[in-house]
Amino acid sequence: MITQKTGFKEPKITLVGAGPGDPELITMKGANALKSADVILYDALVDEAILDYGHADAIRIYVGKRSGEHSLSQDKINKLMVDYALNYGHVVRLKGGDPFVFGRGYEELDYAAGYSIPVQVIPGLSSSISVPGLQQIPVTHRGLSESFWVVTGTTASGAISNDLYEAARTKATVVVLMGLGKLKEIVKLFQNEGKNKLPVAAIQSGSTEEEKLAIGIVDTIEEIVLEKGIKAPALLVFGEVVSLHPSFQPIKDFYKALKEEL
Amino acid sequence: MITQKTGFKEPKITLVGAGPGDPELITMKGANALKSADVILYDALVDEAILDYGHADAIRIYVGKRSGEHSLSQDKINKLMVDYALNYGHVVRLKGGDPFVFGRGYEELDYAAGYSIPVQVIPGLSSSISVPGLQQIPVTHRGLSESFWVVTGTTASGAISNDLYEAARTKATVVVLMGLGKLKEIVKLFQNEGKNKLPVAAIQSGSTEEEKLAIGIVDTIEEIVLEKGIKAPALLVFGEVVSLHPSFQPIKDFYKALKEEL
Repeated sequence: MITQKTGFKEPKITLVGAGPGDPELITMKGANALKSADVILYDALVDEAILDYGHADAIRIYVGKRSGEHSLSQDKINKLMVDYALNYGHVVRLKGGDPFVFGRGYEELDYAAGYSIPVQVIPGLSSSISVPGLQQIPVTHRGLSESFWVVTGTTASGAISNDLYEAARTKATVVVLMGLGKLKEIVKLFQNEGKNKLPVAAIQSGSTEEEKLAIGIVDTIEEIVLEKGIKAPALLVFGEVVSLHPSFQPIKDFYKALKEEL
Repeated sequence: MITQKTGFKEPKITLVGAGPGDPELITMKGANALKSADVILYDALVDEAILDYGHADAIRIYVGKRSGEHSLSQDKINKLMVDYALNYGHVVRLKGGDPFVFGRGYEELDYAAGYSIPVQVIPGLSSSISVPGLQQIPVTHRGLSESFWVVTGTTASGAISNDLYEAARTKATVVVLMGLGKLKEIVKLFQNEGKNKLPVAAIQSGSTEEEKLAIGIVDTIEEIVLEKGIKAPALLVFGEVVSLHPSFQPIKDFYKALKEEL
């Protein structure tokens, strides 16, 4: 395997989705791409055990962002990626979840295209579907939900996405990624729509050993998130489908008892 | 490996998402579950090459539905699954895409729970994200889309989902699964919202050798789908993100030229 500048290799970039965290939740195709990588550029959201699929000689570079940490700008990541491809050959750009779900994957693909470097995309499990799924919360279920809407809690401007205002009005299962820091405002949106008793789940670090779960309703979820010590990265699920989780049963019983008392 | 009734094995069911079709797009965990399966119950949407991950001795049973074909009812599938688990041990229920995205996976899980059979869920790549992604159409992209909404074109009642009426009004990227047969009505919904020029993609059999793509706008997509001979299974993507696909460039140029003429 040639990883030195001396032996020229065709530059090539593969955008690979690493999935939600568990190293076994990468696709076979993603793991195979890692095996043939000369360079791996990886994100904060990627479990470093996933890097073990790569060749021992492959160059591994952390380009991730974690809140509060100094991190590389998107522009610098783009440049690094192209630089390494031109000098070393096959670069795997490994991203948490799926590259195109709030992953800025298209910006990287577009930048590489500007240098006429061929880019392949290998999708990954988006946490939006897989993390609720691993908790046996289905994003769709006959009689409860005919659709699901995935929204980011943190837009480029820092404000809540307008789409979230709309989503709070609908019957879709609403999955909010990167929304934990805005939980108070997001809860307010659902309260404004009279959805005070809509079931909600907050799931931290889904599929990993740090996984934590909070289950409640719109009116109680903030308190339960605090109680359970849920921290970012976490996602939120708003919808009747959350009521299918076993932890929701006591909540159901409580409101049933309350109703009977009145 | 014991697959006879004589050697008792603990019953166990694993719901596995096979992904969009390409056998390499199953997760490592899904492939590993197949390796340890005594029985594999699989759907129409699963590429049979994926079954090769299973042990040669594993019992393979097709329980799929294809339009027009005689097929097993959901109830019969549930019963078969539990029967095999009780008699043979580890059943892998292999479903196209992700088990919880219009896959009726929760119904199977719930049925098995009724028999106190432990069920594990291994998510799969949902075609809703991965099939556009493989065509390098990102479901989200800064400046174009802050969210995506996944809706089924075919509800239990046969009617178009109400959620689709709502979705046509929003700025979300709208992905419609199983909607090709209702394309005319779905197009109408977007036209009613004045979205005649919204970019649309129809993708058949994404990730497989039969993959076909049609790219147009709301007003032209029906014609282009006919021209390209797109058949089910196919998904539809409505949204500005579709304009990022290279095939959209001539359409852009055409409307630009038209505008300049006027």
